[in-house]
Amino acid sequence: MHDKPADQAEPLQSDAATMRPGGRTARTATAVLDATIAELGDVGYAALRIEVVAERAGVNRATIYRRWGDKPSLVAAAFTARQAEVSPPADTGDLLEDLLCFLREVRRGFDSPWITALIRETGPRTADNDGLRQALDKIWHARFHLSRQIFARAVERGDLPADTDPDFLVQAATGPLYLRWLMLGRPLTDDFLRQTAALVIAGAQRP
Amino acid sequence: MHDKPADQAEPLQSDAATMRPGGRTARTATAVLDATIAELGDVGYAALRIEVVAERAGVNRATIYRRWGDKPSLVAAAFTARQAEVSPPADTGDLLEDLLCFLREVRRGFDSPWITALIRETGPRTADNDGLRQALDKIWHARFHLSRQIFARAVERGDLPADTDPDFLVQAATGPLYLRWLMLGRPLTDDFLRQTAALVIAGAQRP
Repeated sequence: MHDKPADQAEPLQSDAATMRPGGRTARTATAVLDATIAELGDVGYAALRIEVVAERAGVNRATIYRRWGDKPSLVAAAFTARQAEVSPPADTGDLLEDLLCFLREVRRGFDSPWITALIRETGPRTADNDGLRQALDKIWHARFHLSRQIFARAVERGDLPADTDPDFLVQAATGPLYLRWLMLGRPLTDDFLRQTAALVIAGAQRP
Repeated sequence: MHDKPADQAEPLQSDAATMRPGGRTARTATAVLDATIAELGDVGYAALRIEVVAERAGVNRATIYRRWGDKPSLVAAAFTARQAEVSPPADTGDLLEDLLCFLREVRRGFDSPWITALIRETGPRTADNDGLRQALDKIWHARFHLSRQIFARAVERGDLPADTDPDFLVQAATGPLYLRWLMLGRPLTDDFLRQTAALVIAGAQRP
């Protein structure tokens, strides 16, 4: 596995190896991906250096380059590993409850230093954050794939119209949290989450 | 005016002087505030240095310190001057049209280098961005004061319930734009703006 050339690296699949406890390769991968997340929390994406991650993980930096190729791929792999720990959204049978659970999970994410660091430096797509953008696209894709289920299930139950656009509703429900916390610097109270969830559901139920 | 000590500086009021065309003080103030906005667009808030703004405006840096006191106050004054140029939102008599006009204006704001630079480095409130936060709070306050009128007018017309919360609706309507553009890096199409405006209005009209 260590001898696999970088251009054949497939982080999404090879990460499954990190889930097999006990193997030396799996332990190395876990150490490297954990160190990547810790480093992201400390210095953010732009300042993250593979040498420092290697030192932190106690591995040779050549090991990281061989397996993950470059910084965007390493960060994407670290995201994917963390993503695997995110549970699918709660399925309570009630749309408002499901959506509230999800919004509380989004709020919890804002407490993670590495998520905060990433969000702070993402910004609009530009030439110099293209690597980070590519890595983030993977994690957004995975997150939307999970969270849109809340709305898809509601359509199946007949609680939302058949032409509902689940991806749009995820953006409509989470956008106000990002604005309020990131731009306005105001607290994300449970009242605000409930108000947001109720508005989006009422809007979506309207013919 | 130039001899006014920094601790008596009142940027919000003294900015009115910049609106009186012709005076030397007014011309200096305009040059300094324009240079501040230009510098923000080029280097952002953290890297902005008053010396460089002074050079760019062709004034002595002591002039800036005397009149605006410090960086947060200077930036706040520059925001306030720009804010004065923002027109109140359109009043078409139709809630959906008014909201669409406003969301298009928010989208236009994303094209300004200085707004982009600011948004990129704002992030959650922390010790080291406190000065920027204070400056931003002023501009947010002024913006919300204008944009909430859209919803307040709709309440008066009877198009929205009397217990409508205009500030919340501004956040609900603009949040998805920030998320989509800033976090997801996806285009803000007119369709997306219309879908967002329609959802928020339908949700707000629901009893």
